[in-house]
Amino acid sequence: MEQETNRVEAFSDGVFAIVITILVLEIKVPETHGEDLWPALGAQWPHYAAYIVSFMVIGVMWVNHHTIFSHLKCVDRPLLFLNLLLLMVVSVIPWTTSVLAEHLRDGESANAAAVLYSSWTVVYALVFLGFWWYVTRVGHLFHESVDKGGARATRVRFGLGAVAYPFTVILSFFSAPATLVAHGLIAVYYAANQIPVPLVVEEKRLESASDLRK
Amino acid sequence: MEQETNRVEAFSDGVFAIVITILVLEIKVPETHGEDLWPALGAQWPHYAAYIVSFMVIGVMWVNHHTIFSHLKCVDRPLLFLNLLLLMVVSVIPWTTSVLAEHLRDGESANAAAVLYSSWTVVYALVFLGFWWYVTRVGHLFHESVDKGGARATRVRFGLGAVAYPFTVILSFFSAPATLVAHGLIAVYYAANQIPVPLVVEEKRLESASDLRK
Amino acid sequence: MEQETNRVEAFSDGVFAIVITILVLEIKVPETHGEDLWPALGAQWPHYAAYIVSFMVIGVMWVNHHTIFSHLKCVDRPLLFLNLLLLMVVSVIPWTTSVLAEHLRDGESANAAAVLYSSWTVVYALVFLGFWWYVTRVGHLFHESVDKGGARATRVRFGLGAVAYPFTVILSFFSAPATLVAHGLIAVYYAANQIPVPLVVEEKRLESASDLRK
Amino acid sequence: MEQETNRVEAFSDGVFAIVITILVLEIKVPETHGEDLWPALGAQWPHYAAYIVSFMVIGVMWVNHHTIFSHLKCVDRPLLFLNLLLLMVVSVIPWTTSVLAEHLRDGESANAAAVLYSSWTVVYALVFLGFWWYVTRVGHLFHESVDKGGARATRVRFGLGAVAYPFTVILSFFSAPATLVAHGLIAVYYAANQIPVPLVVEEKRLESASDLRK
Repeated sequence: MEQETNRVEAFSDGVFAIVITILVLEIKVPETHGEDLWPALGAQWPHYAAYIVSFMVIGVMWVNHHTIFSHLKCVDRPLLFLNLLLLMVVSVIPWTTSVLAEHLRDGESANAAAVLYSSWTVVYALVFLGFWWYVTRVGHLFHESVDKGGARATRVRFGLGAVAYPFTVILSFFSAPATLVAHGLIAVYYAANQIPVPLVVEEKRLESASDLRK
Repeated sequence: MEQETNRVEAFSDGVFAIVITILVLEIKVPETHGEDLWPALGAQWPHYAAYIVSFMVIGVMWVNHHTIFSHLKCVDRPLLFLNLLLLMVVSVIPWTTSVLAEHLRDGESANAAAVLYSSWTVVYALVFLGFWWYVTRVGHLFHESVDKGGARATRVRFGLGAVAYPFTVILSFFSAPATLVAHGLIAVYYAANQIPVPLVVEEKRLESASDLRK
Repeated sequence: MEQETNRVEAFSDGVFAIVITILVLEIKVPETHGEDLWPALGAQWPHYAAYIVSFMVIGVMWVNHHTIFSHLKCVDRPLLFLNLLLLMVVSVIPWTTSVLAEHLRDGESANAAAVLYSSWTVVYALVFLGFWWYVTRVGHLFHESVDKGGARATRVRFGLGAVAYPFTVILSFFSAPATLVAHGLIAVYYAANQIPVPLVVEEKRLESASDLRK
Repeated sequence: MEQETNRVEAFSDGVFAIVITILVLEIKVPETHGEDLWPALGAQWPHYAAYIVSFMVIGVMWVNHHTIFSHLKCVDRPLLFLNLLLLMVVSVIPWTTSVLAEHLRDGESANAAAVLYSSWTVVYALVFLGFWWYVTRVGHLFHESVDKGGARATRVRFGLGAVAYPFTVILSFFSAPATLVAHGLIAVYYAANQIPVPLVVEEKRLESASDLRK
């Protein structure tokens, strides 16, 4: 049975909001006392860097999730569970972030931690592609305004976009800090460049329609 | 006084979202440094397995909660408190998960932890049955579209479905890892097979009605 | 400027949902290994008892908050901040719960912890009375359906209802476990007995109105 | 593409609700047993003070966020990311709070912790000003009821209001407790004095419109 999207969006927003907020629980309070607080705070820079990058990464994931759902009219049972799978993958990110932050300045284990962090983004990209694949395959869940054929055609470009993630896995073997920077840059790139979902009606018409609605 | 379902759903979604997300807080960051990170990460497999299974278990609980509420028109005071009881039981799952993960490879205590985990799902099943029993008894809270007699008739099948849980308690005395696998399989089974709530009007008609609404 | 109640309710629901869910983070995983898991789990009974009682206490607080807001049409700035004050008091309960659970079997300090726990419910009752006082004083925020004079008249009964809390403070000096039981019983009592907010129109009429709306 | 504000508000409310609630996780349960519980609880006063002040600070931030969004009709992509940036800054406050509370009675490191706490509020003020600057620059996201020219004119007053924050940074070098008090007073001041967003139509007219809508 097909259901409305409201509660799924509310639940997903809740999970995204919690995941992005508990990132900060990973940053510890330095226990050094006396004059040494500044150096102690400075020594925690890997945690700050990892916090900022992961906040951006999850933020972009939320915006993408948000955008896809704004094109959906209803959800069916498979989508409900694909969505749960997606949320399960996202919920693990505070942990991969914490592992990376803890080991970032630690020789061999830094690379292993970066491989873990990067591989997990590959897992996310695969699940996200599966999600988009399912949504565009039949297109029965889309709003009428969406050009179903055009949406299906975006799948290749979405797939190409995800190639950046496997690249970060390779980079992880060479430098963990560079990998963290790469993830930050990818998030900025995705934030600025969104693959648009083609609409049957042009945006102009949509806007005038929304003017009428008022 | 009967009230609308919105805020109860929003509150419940919030609790489910938080419960499912704080599961990840139970996975620790390995403190081993140097080359030993991979084996240290590997040694934590019980935590990953328990995380995945509990995420699925809670996910199915949320979908079921979601489905029942989609058939309700309003809530009364007893339902409000039955719902709180249900949420109280669900909120404990991160803890039973953590106890199971911590003791999964630990001989005697593994079985005890599995019994705890499995028994708690029995408690959940009982509360859920009580919830469904109350809702279907009079049926005064249902939407008009729901076939109240038919909904009442599903109670036996719902009850039979819950028999799997006591079985996992017995299994727990023999093997904790097998118990965890069993819970995963039950979640997958429930995800794929939903006992439908009978509607007065056939689904075809409903769909055409929703077409008209546009 | 008066605003709609939606976002305030959503924010408050979020806070209540998180507060009630993080209660479980206070229950620790026993570190005992081997055959000793059951006694180790049993030894934690103060944490389970405190969890159940505080879940009920916060649950009743949420239901009351929910009920009051269902009678409000809009919020003004003072109410926004009275609401924040109420949420601040509620948010502290996981901590008072934890202090009580940790010290419940600990002679002298058990009584001190119970005094802390009980006094905090007195603080909550005072803030809640202030909230209700403000709302009923002018009644400018109520829905039209609310009998403003009648609502104002409930203030005394609300105040009498809160007398139970100071009594638990006195009880705390004699027995911490009895205090915990008392809080559980008070929550059950409030769950079963709600002081109704008088409405101008009778419920029958309201129901027929809601029938018409369909 | 411009989207509706609902989901952004819901997500932001979720983040604010979690941030304000996890503040309490920073208050530890004293481990002293026996008669010493009261002094042990008393010794934690910096944590209580920091909790109260930060709850007020974040509460005011939420009210301001809430107010701005009540004037917006839709969001565009830059605003979505400016909003994420704002939430990122707010999410760090439980950590700066914890650092300040932990070091408040600790000579040299108290001042450093206060500088950190105060500087972070400056960062917040700058991001908030940037947010308001973007929203008022073109005004394309405002509701029709908002006087765009008037809204733009508030930017200077908003900026002047933020001057209090750099002042707390300077104060931090002299006294950490005084700094905490100053932040509390600033929050109270902002709670009582809101810079109003000018509307094209007078409030009277709006109210009568809302009367008509019923």
